[in-house]
Amino acid sequence: MEVNVAVVGATGLVGAEALSILASRAVEPDRIIALASARSDGAVIDYAGEPLPVIGATRDALDGADLVLLCASADAARDLAPAALDAGAVVIDNSSAFRLDPQVPLVVPEINGDGLGAQTTLIANPNCSTIILLLALDPLRRAFGIEHIDVSTYQAVSGAGAGAIADLEQQARAFAAGEPIEPRFFREPCLFNVFSHDAPVDPETGLNGEESKIIHESRRIWSDAALRISPTCVRVPTLRAHAQSIRVRLERPAAEAEVRAALLAAPGLRILDDRARNDFPTPLKASGGDEVLVGRIRPDPAHDGAPGDRFKCFQLFVCADQLRKGAALNAIQIAERLSHVRAQAPTFVHRAGS
Amino acid sequence: MEVNVAVVGATGLVGAEALSILASRAVEPDRIIALASARSDGAVIDYAGEPLPVIGATRDALDGADLVLLCASADAARDLAPAALDAGAVVIDNSSAFRLDPQVPLVVPEINGDGLGAQTTLIANPNCSTIILLLALDPLRRAFGIEHIDVSTYQAVSGAGAGAIADLEQQARAFAAGEPIEPRFFREPCLFNVFSHDAPVDPETGLNGEESKIIHESRRIWSDAALRISPTCVRVPTLRAHAQSIRVRLERPAAEAEVRAALLAAPGLRILDDRARNDFPTPLKASGGDEVLVGRIRPDPAHDGAPGDRFKCFQLFVCADQLRKGAALNAIQIAERLSHVRAQAPTFVHRAGS
Repeated sequence: MEVNVAVVGATGLVGAEALSILASRAVEPDRIIALASARSDGAVIDYAGEPLPVIGATRDALDGADLVLLCASADAARDLAPAALDAGAVVIDNSSAFRLDPQVPLVVPEINGDGLGAQTTLIANPNCSTIILLLALDPLRRAFGIEHIDVSTYQAVSGAGAGAIADLEQQARAFAAGEPIEPRFFREPCLFNVFSHDAPVDPETGLNGEESKIIHESRRIWSDAALRISPTCVRVPTLRAHAQSIRVRLERPAAEAEVRAALLAAPGLRILDDRARNDFPTPLKASGGDEVLVGRIRPDPAHDGAPGDRFKCFQLFVCADQLRKGAALNAIQIAERLSHVRAQAPTFVHRAGS
Repeated sequence: MEVNVAVVGATGLVGAEALSILASRAVEPDRIIALASARSDGAVIDYAGEPLPVIGATRDALDGADLVLLCASADAARDLAPAALDAGAVVIDNSSAFRLDPQVPLVVPEINGDGLGAQTTLIANPNCSTIILLLALDPLRRAFGIEHIDVSTYQAVSGAGAGAIADLEQQARAFAAGEPIEPRFFREPCLFNVFSHDAPVDPETGLNGEESKIIHESRRIWSDAALRISPTCVRVPTLRAHAQSIRVRLERPAAEAEVRAALLAAPGLRILDDRARNDFPTPLKASGGDEVLVGRIRPDPAHDGAPGDRFKCFQLFVCADQLRKGAALNAIQIAERLSHVRAQAPTFVHRAGS
């Protein structure tokens, strides 16, 4: 059986990435419905080398879609998801709209994909930083348990959308031209600068929105309401792929070799950890890829164990393309996982050439 | 009494900053001896608006200097310091040559400047990241004690010298011109990228040289051989000023207001922590300044305390100009502090117009 896939937000960064991944799965153009906000109605985008018209994302425009990938705002998701579900579609939402709704599964397939049921029709895709962090740490959680996570992020501007990329790029051009560098998108200049994540900050707790998402979404995905996690989210002048400096305290001590073995065996990860060549994960190496790159794997030196000892605390540095595994790829992997629990498996889930 | 000040490495980034600070202290040009490597012999630099000749840094060239600021390599420091000391000069070294020598004080004036004696003639200036971290945390250590520090850095390329700045800038120009971006200084591209610190990595521990400096220098400065500290050092594409994401575990629980009060009262710090406006420290705000900017002050959410409670763990985000407080300014503050313990106080220590 073939399925019709509607991509809402087809002109955005995540939507474009979703279309690229669908094309790599050999979904035919006539099965794709590309939707975007009303101002993009009439635009034409490229899909697998063919022109694809973009239509305004209204409830009616979703008619005939078997799978709806919502790659748009939380407001758009709340508006469109009910209609798509009423029409019998499966909906996977990339926004924050349903992530903390106890009725809606929040899924990273490698971690909790087994919990998807055949009756599930609305699934929330987690925040990008959350996906990357949990995918890197899930093998350690399974093998040794986790007591505490401390994570500082180095997040690409593209997490804030295409306007942020344009802003960073225009600032680089302004610098090269000797012109003043003025922010047009963020409140801070992003070229040659670093700033605390632009999400609003809770006046009471001091946490910004990105940090709150990491905390609450991680607890849901791991079904651990008491999970202890201390995030600091920061933007850096990179175009895409987020990096994270992680310190994890395990429940049960592990040897460094055991930690490496657990990471090496885990799905979705690639170890890049060459101490002699100082070759570790970077955003540029992760950009465009499907894997979370993991490196700088080492016991926490604060514990002063002798080599060969077992340690409770380890440190890692990870990078991953947040538009792919952090968003579009994870959403499509959810759809692929769903196919395993449904009689009517969408055929695009049989990976074609990727 | 006037003093003659030799600046070794006068054509480097730290040396230039030292000269700028000496000029702000109204040290007359005829009191300055500008020295650099043999290839800079004959160069002319600007000092307080006047041309100043640069001469090759040989042992003989230090003759007549009362104060020698070594802003050069560890090798140069090991070569020149003994001669300068023999000639009766006070020597302050910015390199790593003497930092772990138990006979040489390692000084951040606000922290352990009181330990300087009238007989001290050789003083080591700590690593830039160490100075910034410890200055921010020293008030908390004094008030509440510190059990553990976890710090992830966002370090400017200028920590690696002028060549690194030129490399980042040429990469921005190459991007603007649509040309390929090729690293000439670091092994990784720095524009639109983030990478683990370029210092060599210990094959056994996995720590890089910058992380080892933070650990061992912090223990010396605080006279606490058992200090527990877990650093991760990372380069980001900023030109100057280092940022740090810090999680600190205190020995004695504190209220958030007490932590803020301790930071507010401390020398060398400026609080920039506006949650409503998302206005926090950035490298651009810290560049060219003398203070360590401190913000994002909050209790660690992993502890789930209710507002008003006392907490053992706090998080901070700090930025400071590593060429000034992280290097040249700290060195000159050491000289100024020394003047307080000597009969023959150098007059430049009476701050003129700064």
